[in-house]
Amino acid sequence: MPALVGKAYFNYGGQGPLPTPSLEAIQQTWERIQELGPFGGAAWPFAEATVAGLRQELAAWCGVPAQRLSFTENVSSGCLLPLWGLPWESGDELLISDAEHDGVVAGCRELAHRHGLRLTNLPVQAELASEAEAATAVLEALEQRLTPHTRLVVLSHLLWNTGQLMPIAAVARRLAQHPRRPWLLVDGAQSLGSVPVAEAAAAADIYACTGHKWCCGPEGLGVAVLSDRLLVESRPTLIGWRSLAEAGSGAAPFHRDGRRFEVATSCTPLFAGLHRSLALLNAEGNAETRLAAIRQSSAVLWRGLGQLEGVQPLLTTPPPAGLVSFTVAGWEPAALVQKLVEQGFWLRQLPDPACVRACTHITTSQEEIEALIGAIGALAKGR
Amino acid sequence: MPALVGKAYFNYGGQGPLPTPSLEAIQQTWERIQELGPFGGAAWPFAEATVAGLRQELAAWCGVPAQRLSFTENVSSGCLLPLWGLPWESGDELLISDAEHDGVVAGCRELAHRHGLRLTNLPVQAELASEAEAATAVLEALEQRLTPHTRLVVLSHLLWNTGQLMPIAAVARRLAQHPRRPWLLVDGAQSLGSVPVAEAAAAADIYACTGHKWCCGPEGLGVAVLSDRLLVESRPTLIGWRSLAEAGSGAAPFHRDGRRFEVATSCTPLFAGLHRSLALLNAEGNAETRLAAIRQSSAVLWRGLGQLEGVQPLLTTPPPAGLVSFTVAGWEPAALVQKLVEQGFWLRQLPDPACVRACTHITTSQEEIEALIGAIGALAKGR
Repeated sequence: MPALVGKAYFNYGGQGPLPTPSLEAIQQTWERIQELGPFGGAAWPFAEATVAGLRQELAAWCGVPAQRLSFTENVSSGCLLPLWGLPWESGDELLISDAEHDGVVAGCRELAHRHGLRLTNLPVQAELASEAEAATAVLEALEQRLTPHTRLVVLSHLLWNTGQLMPIAAVARRLAQHPRRPWLLVDGAQSLGSVPVAEAAAAADIYACTGHKWCCGPEGLGVAVLSDRLLVESRPTLIGWRSLAEAGSGAAPFHRDGRRFEVATSCTPLFAGLHRSLALLNAEGNAETRLAAIRQSSAVLWRGLGQLEGVQPLLTTPPPAGLVSFTVAGWEPAALVQKLVEQGFWLRQLPDPACVRACTHITTSQEEIEALIGAIGALAKGR
Repeated sequence: MPALVGKAYFNYGGQGPLPTPSLEAIQQTWERIQELGPFGGAAWPFAEATVAGLRQELAAWCGVPAQRLSFTENVSSGCLLPLWGLPWESGDELLISDAEHDGVVAGCRELAHRHGLRLTNLPVQAELASEAEAATAVLEALEQRLTPHTRLVVLSHLLWNTGQLMPIAAVARRLAQHPRRPWLLVDGAQSLGSVPVAEAAAAADIYACTGHKWCCGPEGLGVAVLSDRLLVESRPTLIGWRSLAEAGSGAAPFHRDGRRFEVATSCTPLFAGLHRSLALLNAEGNAETRLAAIRQSSAVLWRGLGQLEGVQPLLTTPPPAGLVSFTVAGWEPAALVQKLVEQGFWLRQLPDPACVRACTHITTSQEEIEALIGAIGALAKGR
């Protein structure tokens, strides 16, 4: 992983490093497509097999049949494309957690604007105790905020700011008892590749992921897992040859499976790159084993930071996954990040709550963590 | 261009060959992003400069300010994304040519379904005489089909099936006199990289292109040129961090320029690849010079085919660009294409009108054309 050379990298939640074998797979796929085509002949079966192979692999990761997967360019598209085609009614309420990413929030605001829907707020960001306590609090908050008009709940699986894990399956079970059976949209940007996702992905109506963060795949390729009912209830909005069940007719029916939300030409070599990255992760252990390694590292970092004077981790117990957010007294997050980057430590600041975030992955070494704790300790002391 | 080795390639209208320097630019960009980031630090200015550089270059090709460009994943997205956010009113009419691609047609059908709009038909496909005669006929057909309710006209610049060129600027002038000033959506899938596009791109409200056909760039990156009024009148539908004018808030306003229709993370290395491909095309001459070379080749092919017994080019005069569609008596298009591929000639069949299409680009040699004419002549004689 060339990206990890010469720096201590803690930005996996922003973008993961692309392993050299994945870049090679991308390039080889490009070369093969050129050799076989690029258009017509054996290039098409090759491209189809490349896409189908990744679909099967991701279906296994997500614990669902491959037909429920829809490839997208990024998480925002995966969250929003299936939403636009749902049968909204004026007055429907969208219950959105207070820890969602800008893009999803802005997309839901626009959806509400066009269809006369109401946005309501599900407070989850303040739940900083253990995963179990947070789960109880989130389910209580859900109970309080659900109304007869609730039609959609939007909640990330792993919160991108605090790093807390949300009880997606339990939320889905509660929604199933609601008379209107609200749809459940889950932003899985931080979860695929870092925590086991099968239970949550199978429980959500839309579970949107990307390959370029914790999966260490190339940027520009994501996947959304869709429920059977969503595939029936939602119509495609962006439409191209990949959405249509028959080539050659604009009057053809849409695919009934996840392809109905795929659009037109995308970059086939990226599929091979992500597939290779997933294989490399698999070679390091299954999702549970990898999460255990990630948690071990994040716990060491969380503990070390918590022992420094003036440094305050957001979570009050060791993180459920690899996101470790914290504040340092006397430091603006942006200034602290800048200072750390100059010293070779790659972290990012977050706007709300204002904090600095360090991510640990299975590639994170004990030495990197100790060095980071030391560097932050020195900077904290300086204030 | 490795794709051109060992075959006679006539599928530029499907996908262009990717030059080795472009693939190298893609790979170098990936390596550089890994080295600089991939997330944070100097990786962001580098990615921004890569995107901005291509935006400037494409703006020059399209003869518009760079702010009017919106990057998309493909042509279908470029056509449809700006459409969904327009202020449609029930009863509005979408006047769509009978030579449009499946994806755009299906997208307009869905738009009509959701908003109670009417689809009407603009017949242009039958215009097979000279470009000038076709222009007159298309403008007459437009005159007949415009009604007080017409709100959108959809017309390709260069028809993907017959290869005829449409009078986009004249259509735009006519629409400007209509009381409702209908929006003009132009599918430029076959035009960017094959014919000069500046006049048409500046005249349309949405002029959607892709980099992977006549520009010989990588698959998965396109651009839409938007009019100033469209940028004011249309709201974004797919929304992500790239659509928002300020990072860190889902309540931020949208960009006022073309970025309002861009979504979230896409594959930055593709931008470098397309930029390199455009530079390679530029090095072969300006748009007019290149079109002259393309027309010279397509004219030779068109004449040669027309002289074969049983072979009928669709157009009755030499093609205005590089698309040469034809039928061969006694041959199903698919069977003929299959037979030709076996002999090393790469063409495609089209569904409506049922025909075979050969494309000539500046890379097409006289020998390839003569060999293709010979091969088709032999197959035609066999029936």
